[in-house]
Amino acid sequence: MATRGKGLYEFTGEIAGWLSERRVGTGLLTVFVQHTSASLVIQENADPDVVLDLKNFFARIAPENDPLYRHTIEGPDDMPAHIKAALTATQLSIPVERGRLALGTWQGVYLFEHRDMPHRRSVVLHLLGEEG
Amino acid sequence: MATRGKGLYEFTGEIAGWLSERRVGTGLLTVFVQHTSASLVIQENADPDVVLDLKNFFARIAPENDPLYRHTIEGPDDMPAHIKAALTATQLSIPVERGRLALGTWQGVYLFEHRDMPHRRSVVLHLLGEEG
Amino acid sequence: MATRGKGLYEFTGEIAGWLSERRVGTGLLTVFVQHTSASLVIQENADPDVVLDLKNFFARIAPENDPLYRHTIEGPDDMPAHIKAALTATQLSIPVERGRLALGTWQGVYLFEHRDMPHRRSVVLHLLGEEG
Repeated sequence: MATRGKGLYEFTGEIAGWLSERRVGTGLLTVFVQHTSASLVIQENADPDVVLDLKNFFARIAPENDPLYRHTIEGPDDMPAHIKAALTATQLSIPVERGRLALGTWQGVYLFEHRDMPHRRSVVLHLLGEEG
Repeated sequence: MATRGKGLYEFTGEIAGWLSERRVGTGLLTVFVQHTSASLVIQENADPDVVLDLKNFFARIAPENDPLYRHTIEGPDDMPAHIKAALTATQLSIPVERGRLALGTWQGVYLFEHRDMPHRRSVVLHLLGEEG
Repeated sequence: MATRGKGLYEFTGEIAGWLSERRVGTGLLTVFVQHTSASLVIQENADPDVVLDLKNFFARIAPENDPLYRHTIEGPDDMPAHIKAALTATQLSIPVERGRLALGTWQGVYLFEHRDMPHRRSVVLHLLGEEG
């Protein structure tokens, strides 16, 4: 998927659409991001201030240009990106019940982009389960 | 499950009991919390000071009434709750071997409640595997 | 696996070797660490400074001898170890496609050791899927 700088990009709908084309009634859907400078979170998708606050919190906890970093050759946003990825998730598995994601009412699945430049991010979706 | 304010609530026994009623010998048990202001951790269940220290560490790293937060309408404990959930886990999958959870000797599974008021929290248990 | 003090130990090759001895074409490989003072991360395995910076970041965010800690009987490195484990992952599941781990180009799987002394760490590998 395409990202346009740091922030949380919801793609719950894309996952649900992909799932709806399969015949699994009960199973486990795994979301896996193939990068170490972007990650995954499940967060509230009601008030957009929640994901904005999350982005700002992570910017503060892993600031750019921190003298702690030795890895600086890929730009000031890269090492903070790796830290934010380590603090959140590379993989999420969501149970499937009656052919649907067993998410809570306010839960959305987000790609958390940690780099400034636009990127194309590869996310693998994988489904295990039984027809039903 | 019912929570009574911030803290870590062990429910390893409930998961093991649920598993023991199934016929799976080898498999994967997934625990999924359907909320974004509570989360999951696997932690030491020997010294109760460990989970108390964890609670206090997370209270300090994501304090209430931080001027960074825009999302304040659900109370001072809500945005810190979302941050703490992002820093820990919404989902955990535990291998099952010979019908039992493959946990280490000192590992317990905890619901980490991040809100002050009592809540009922929905946790989905899902099992994939083979009879044995 | 054996660790020799704090740091990130890559074992992607061991996991890939274990997988190559199985007949699964499409599936899900779960890595589960049976400890609460060591954890898992998927991180960049190109520039070794990345994992060094990660180690140093986590040392700063969860310092030793913090007056916040009550759990001190197992040494100054133990409570920080539990915190670092809670902030990273106890379990990772990686999709398997055509018999291989669906990792990104620069992704490596690491055991993150949080204790100072040498340890033997138990990591469970578990595979679900179909022959192919």
